Amino acid sequence: MHRALALAALAQGCTSPNPLVGALVLDANGRLIGEGYHARAGRPHAEVGALAQAGEAARGGTLIVTLEPCCHHGRTPPCTDAVIAAGLERVVVALEDPDPRVAGGGVSRLRSAGLEVITGVLREQAAQQNRAFVHRVRTGRPWGVLKWAMSLDGRTALPNGESQWISGSEARSWVHQLRACCDAVIVGGGTLRADDPLLTSRGRRDPEPLRVVLSRSMQIPARAQLWNTDVAPTLLAHGPQVRDVPAPSGPERLSLPVCDPEHLMRALASRGCNQVLWECGPELAASAVQQQCVQELAVVVAPKLLGGHASRTPLGDLGLISLDQAKQLTMEQTISLGDDRLLVSLVY
Amino acid sequence: MHRALALAALAQGCTSPNPLVGALVLDANGRLIGEGYHARAGRPHAEVGALAQAGEAARGGTLIVTLEPCCHHGRTPPCTDAVIAAGLERVVVALEDPDPRVAGGGVSRLRSAGLEVITGVLREQAAQQNRAFVHRVRTGRPWGVLKWAMSLDGRTALPNGESQWISGSEARSWVHQLRACCDAVIVGGGTLRADDPLLTSRGRRDPEPLRVVLSRSMQIPARAQLWNTDVAPTLLAHGPQVRDVPAPSGPERLSLPVCDPEHLMRALASRGCNQVLWECGPELAASAVQQQCVQELAVVVAPKLLGGHASRTPLGDLGLISLDQAKQLTMEQTISLGDDRLLVSLVY
Repeated sequence: MHRALALAALAQGCTSPNPLVGALVLDANGRLIGEGYHARAGRPHAEVGALAQAGEAARGGTLIVTLEPCCHHGRTPPCTDAVIAAGLERVVVALEDPDPRVAGGGVSRLRSAGLEVITGVLREQAAQQNRAFVHRVRTGRPWGVLKWAMSLDGRTALPNGESQWISGSEARSWVHQLRACCDAVIVGGGTLRADDPLLTSRGRRDPEPLRVVLSRSMQIPARAQLWNTDVAPTLLAHGPQVRDVPAPSGPERLSLPVCDPEHLMRALASRGCNQVLWECGPELAASAVQQQCVQELAVVVAPKLLGGHASRTPLGDLGLISLDQAKQLTMEQTISLGDDRLLVSLVY
Repeated sequence: MHRALALAALAQGCTSPNPLVGALVLDANGRLIGEGYHARAGRPHAEVGALAQAGEAARGGTLIVTLEPCCHHGRTPPCTDAVIAAGLERVVVALEDPDPRVAGGGVSRLRSAGLEVITGVLREQAAQQNRAFVHRVRTGRPWGVLKWAMSLDGRTALPNGESQWISGSEARSWVHQLRACCDAVIVGGGTLRADDPLLTSRGRRDPEPLRVVLSRSMQIPARAQLWNTDVAPTLLAHGPQVRDVPAPSGPERLSLPVCDPEHLMRALASRGCNQVLWECGPELAASAVQQQCVQELAVVVAPKLLGGHASRTPLGDLGLISLDQAKQLTMEQTISLGDDRLLVSLVY
């Protein structure tokens, strides 16, 4: 199962709206005769690839798979049919598929067909690997990562607004990698106006993640790197009040019923986004946190002191009046990125 | 030498104004026959303790010592005399003593007496161990550590000023340990008024570090934990303008020519402080940084989000107008303290 999880991880960031899945086939004597992983939506499922490699030798053998095989017709036929047809004796599963179209149905189907099915092997690791997919299926919203870079004294800009670059080149390169693991990257109108960002993975992901601008006012510049959609797709999301305000021709427009993080998340989930990255300013970040649109924080701390009374800080008002109200998050990882440190924290 | 450094470290925080020193004596056959370390000012030097243990067997042997033996009369006689009298053949030294009363004089004295002297063995580790002492001797100021605890979004208090407790119990216990390694702990009048802190090591150091209040205005409360000097000594430092303002009877008073961090540091160095801890608010911290009174930053990051436009941040204005002006510090260590992370950084 460790190997199956490693296979699944090869497609990280590429499978949305589908989960990551890896699979192995052992013959009746326990020899490895096939392996596969789900590379992207529309391509064969992991089990099918592994069974195709194994061929006739799979008869009487074992399938080891990180996620419960599907039992429904999607873009590809049900995997349970392929597993049964291959004449396997045993299936070992890490995680039950939370998708309501599966949700135990795959395991039942296999058991009814006479196969031995063992579930829950390395379940926790498998759930961790697919936490974005599981979150999206359970809540109808993508897993949200909020990222910022700050100085050791918690500033994201100088009093005069200067903010490029606080972190070093390793941290910036890591941000490109992080974008490559996300289906969409979101900024607000303020960041667009101040920074004119490019927001791509610099080719680490193909296609590039969807770049999203959430603008309440539609006070957007006429020229911006994001309007050039040859590089990557751009979505311009706003509320119904500004539906008729003209906009640049490149980006797709999306009129949300309410212009807030929650409604944007639902729209992106329905477009198949499992994981999104918030790269926005303090006000939008605070709204995203308050509307439970942030599940993970990635904070780059640079060994610098910026100081200043009016210096920008990462988050706007959260409305706290007592420290007891501040949620205790979980520090997940501390990673060195050159001279900087990355603190990854989970929001429960 | 590794063992000698480990011996020296046993007295960490206790030897000021003296350095940490550890020493071993080997006999003519290389067998360990004596060891010692400098426990506190006024007590025997490390070399003398190790030679006393070794006795007559030291004749023809080797002394291994982390710092150049002294050649001047202080509170104890010169160690070079004791080394020569013991009939040793060889002395191995890690670090030359930067004290102008020694500064190579100890090594010369031993060489003139016919001993072989090897210097610079593990010099870097020895310099690191005594960086506070070396800094004080070179600059006339103690090594300054600036410590704060902040949320993941860089806040040290809520907009309403509430600040206890941002960090967890492990981090608070570590702060007591940090105080035990310092000769003085400094706050400003604002922190005194807002928090009424105790500022002791909770018995981890004997005597407790000197507690210092630096107050420009002398607007200090009539009752405060710091005024009870049964627990630990307190020094109330201020400028000449408020020399005649009455003050509580417990603490010692110190009238500085100018009420700023720099003048306080010179006064504390002349009282024998090698290392001091700044536990003050953002304005005094910013002055201390600007006046080069901070050599090390110890930042506890708690996995919480506080947010807020008016929330207190660690540092007041540093007068920067471009990010190029922000000094690149060195991240020295990242340490887990329960749920919190401690980032230790050096200010060059």
